Amino acid sequence: MKSDIQIAHEAQLLPVQAIAEKLGVDADDLELYGKYKAKFSSSIWPKIADRKNGRLVLVTAINPTPAGEGKTTVTVGLGQALNHIGKNAVIALREPSLGPCFGMKGGAAGGGYAQVVPMEDLNLHFTGDFHAITSANNLLAAMLDNHLFQGNALDIDPKRIIFKRCLDMNDRALRHTVVGMGGPKDGVVREDGFIITVASEIMAILCLASDLNDLKQRLGRIIVAWTRSGDPVTARDLQAVGAMATLLKDAINPNLIQTLENTPAIIHGGPFANIAHGCNSVRATRLGLKLADIVVTEAGFGADLGAEKFFDIKCRMSGLRPNCVVLVATTKALKYNGGAGKSEWQHENMAALEKGIVNLGKHIENLKKYGVPVVVTLNAYASDTANEHAFIRRYCQERGCRFALAEVWEKGGPGGVELAREIIDTLETEPEHFQPLYPDTLPLSAKIETIAEEIYGADGVTYSAAARTTLEKLEGMGFGHFPICMAKTQYSFSDDPSLLGRPAGFKIHIREVYVSAGAGFVVALTGAIMTMPGLPKTPAANIIDINEDGLIGGLF
Amino acid sequence: MKSDIQIAHEAQLLPVQAIAEKLGVDADDLELYGKYKAKFSSSIWPKIADRKNGRLVLVTAINPTPAGEGKTTVTVGLGQALNHIGKNAVIALREPSLGPCFGMKGGAAGGGYAQVVPMEDLNLHFTGDFHAITSANNLLAAMLDNHLFQGNALDIDPKRIIFKRCLDMNDRALRHTVVGMGGPKDGVVREDGFIITVASEIMAILCLASDLNDLKQRLGRIIVAWTRSGDPVTARDLQAVGAMATLLKDAINPNLIQTLENTPAIIHGGPFANIAHGCNSVRATRLGLKLADIVVTEAGFGADLGAEKFFDIKCRMSGLRPNCVVLVATTKALKYNGGAGKSEWQHENMAALEKGIVNLGKHIENLKKYGVPVVVTLNAYASDTANEHAFIRRYCQERGCRFALAEVWEKGGPGGVELAREIIDTLETEPEHFQPLYPDTLPLSAKIETIAEEIYGADGVTYSAAARTTLEKLEGMGFGHFPICMAKTQYSFSDDPSLLGRPAGFKIHIREVYVSAGAGFVVALTGAIMTMPGLPKTPAANIIDINEDGLIGGLF
Repeated sequence: MKSDIQIAHEAQLLPVQAIAEKLGVDADDLELYGKYKAKFSSSIWPKIADRKNGRLVLVTAINPTPAGEGKTTVTVGLGQALNHIGKNAVIALREPSLGPCFGMKGGAAGGGYAQVVPMEDLNLHFTGDFHAITSANNLLAAMLDNHLFQGNALDIDPKRIIFKRCLDMNDRALRHTVVGMGGPKDGVVREDGFIITVASEIMAILCLASDLNDLKQRLGRIIVAWTRSGDPVTARDLQAVGAMATLLKDAINPNLIQTLENTPAIIHGGPFANIAHGCNSVRATRLGLKLADIVVTEAGFGADLGAEKFFDIKCRMSGLRPNCVVLVATTKALKYNGGAGKSEWQHENMAALEKGIVNLGKHIENLKKYGVPVVVTLNAYASDTANEHAFIRRYCQERGCRFALAEVWEKGGPGGVELAREIIDTLETEPEHFQPLYPDTLPLSAKIETIAEEIYGADGVTYSAAARTTLEKLEGMGFGHFPICMAKTQYSFSDDPSLLGRPAGFKIHIREVYVSAGAGFVVALTGAIMTMPGLPKTPAANIIDINEDGLIGGLF
Repeated sequence: MKSDIQIAHEAQLLPVQAIAEKLGVDADDLELYGKYKAKFSSSIWPKIADRKNGRLVLVTAINPTPAGEGKTTVTVGLGQALNHIGKNAVIALREPSLGPCFGMKGGAAGGGYAQVVPMEDLNLHFTGDFHAITSANNLLAAMLDNHLFQGNALDIDPKRIIFKRCLDMNDRALRHTVVGMGGPKDGVVREDGFIITVASEIMAILCLASDLNDLKQRLGRIIVAWTRSGDPVTARDLQAVGAMATLLKDAINPNLIQTLENTPAIIHGGPFANIAHGCNSVRATRLGLKLADIVVTEAGFGADLGAEKFFDIKCRMSGLRPNCVVLVATTKALKYNGGAGKSEWQHENMAALEKGIVNLGKHIENLKKYGVPVVVTLNAYASDTANEHAFIRRYCQERGCRFALAEVWEKGGPGGVELAREIIDTLETEPEHFQPLYPDTLPLSAKIETIAEEIYGADGVTYSAAARTTLEKLEGMGFGHFPICMAKTQYSFSDDPSLLGRPAGFKIHIREVYVSAGAGFVVALTGAIMTMPGLPKTPAANIIDINEDGLIGGLF
């Protein structure tokens, strides 16, 4: 059997200009990055403003195993399948983070015959967007510490600085630091810490901003600290906005690559879904809707995280209306949710499947609350049995839910035709009645409780004293109308990664709360969720290598 | 009078493919980064291997004022002038660092009618090389701290870790830090610190490596720490080499842009000359020599730093032989070296000039020690007087040194014809007898003393106890044959920035010494020189801005 990277290297890529041409985009509206990557120039927007919007399909998943459930694979495969049956579809994905790539996960570009390419470039620096975000983030942090050092005219309380530096790296040693040590010329001593770039508010802003002007407005609103008298200090107060926006001038433009079957893929932005809002950029999705009849996009991890934030943050803020949701399951994740260990995933285990399928059931119930038609798909593995497939199909049908097998990993687009036809039929026959889970007007704590109870199935929410105080303060400051961005483990509906299936009788504990005033949401941190991951005992970086011919190994 | 950025925006740029064509390079051997930037693909090297090498001209300068002396302007202008008189010349420069760009200095791309363009892109992320270096550096650091956390099988002494994280940012608060704080899962507590990316050993390695294989060998030799029993721990021991090289796969390829007059400019690598070795990459210079008859390159700051390291590190290691040196002076720097304050630089002041010109004299003496013909040039300012020019010209002629006025800031290439003709005449009539200042076999401390006495004019060298111990240890480990990379202020021959002109009766104090085993030199830190700069009270970032049309202000 061929490895993902072998398959990727055998692909017949078209020049990126030819991919753009499929979307009716002229080469003049592209900035090339080598032969197979490009950014859409800002010149494209006025040219497409009057075009009709296409339909929006969101791909989400059940709670995953640590290895992931092939959600990107299904997204890519579905895009290929739609083109295979003659539809004009584009896929819209997030850019991968370097951190996990060198940690546990390897690259992120789909798999088998459903991949985006060139996958090495996508998984490494790509077009530099994340580096630009890291630079803008760390410029603001440096200007903040410089302000303290140069006399602190704004009277910033060094004990109440909330903006952190970031790196696109899994580096646990940077979670909690002290900076400004050394001599009198080396800055002001204070406790600090780094987050991973995908958790930066600037990443969220880039993904939610509609244009350069909106980007600047949002950057200006970032609250970096509080004064000694308790007033917020913003990036605008530090006169950092123009320089940050300058650093982001290219990063705000979506990127174009292709799939193994030359389906156009718009790749832009990449907040994690466990510690951030988990969706690609609004600009990329809007661009896709102008350029194609169907946009297939993805939100990170399970639907409790990715889809919830896609609906309640991204769609709410941008006015985007999803026309259909695809819910991805795998037999191994269903067995995992039924308590089966890794060694049992590759064998038929109906008992574990029957026990774990409640996870799928809860996600179906949840998604229906948003008023968007749901199609369940099974990302098929060679080790799956017909019994297992039949059981899952029947389970969905009993719940009035469409089901289709996706064999895109093995067969590419042709393996996704059943799914593609279900999607087309859904788009043609089932109207969406999309509405977010909660209204803007609900108080912040009630929003948290709504998500915890309605989506996670919790019995309620407990708060640390600090979290409760912050929530009250944020309401008082006028941030009560913001939606909530939950930071929670991806492995469970609860905040405890060991509670699989469809846990009940648990409460969600909110440890910390902060406002991302520029992004426009309030982040609630649950459980032990970290905004800076660490490397495992044997990181992927140990085996990643490049040979003299430039061939890279170990990224998958 | 037009500003630099106005002049830059009025330039008639050619597509970068057309610039490559001037050098006989096919578009297939380029990776485009937008319309006006490209990387040379690795496919170019076998195609040019048999071509004859061109001549190498180094541009260096006297000790500068804080505003700089227009060395890049002269380099660019000379390249334009050589093309103007029908020669096939290319310029080879370093890439600017983001740090100073947002700090004191603004952009770095030449000035007036002698600039490289597009200057905004060059000064911002360019083709991502520095970000790749930052990532590779910080991956190694993360793997090191992860090794400590995961059991420390190599028995690394946390008190003797020498490899530091880096950012391409002026951020003094990161000079001295504590990392690994927090709970038991948050890593191992230890003192740490960040350097600016341009001071990273990986930057030096990228600039000295001849190909991907040599890069990997050098990365593997980086000493990151010492074990408790005193043995060195390398990047190879941490199994980080393949992943680091993968991150650097594109960054090792030189970049191509153009000047205002469409002269090809190869831009690659960018170590600072005060805290690092100060030259563009060996690969870029070698490529230039294969593609053009004359390569005009630059080494940072004054000749005591940039030229010394260009000769004693870059040329020594690579076998490059410079054919001619251009020594740049300005009336304001000569007056500054003569003790005149900023307010006096724009008026004739023969007394200050006569007093300060000893700085030029010492640099001429120094450069002659390397056996390379010297041409002095004056980067002309509108406020200069004929008296001043005549005095400087006569001073050079009395020392048997060629002199030419460079009016390239005001006139572009045509303003550099006198200088270009002197260079051509030098190349045709004066053979080089290049030799480095000291042999490999001299002990490390004797090398430091040779540089201090022969180049700086010091009475000797004092060492901190730690520096002396380290030097002995490095000799014992077999690093005695390495050249020295001095880290010293750019404002004085001494290690005290206030000692201008041609100071005498001073000693150089070596505060700290460390080996860059991968780069292949020993760094000696003098005076108060910092490997992480800070931002000034009012950083350039405060005024940098971008408008809705994408026009950037404040970078110059």
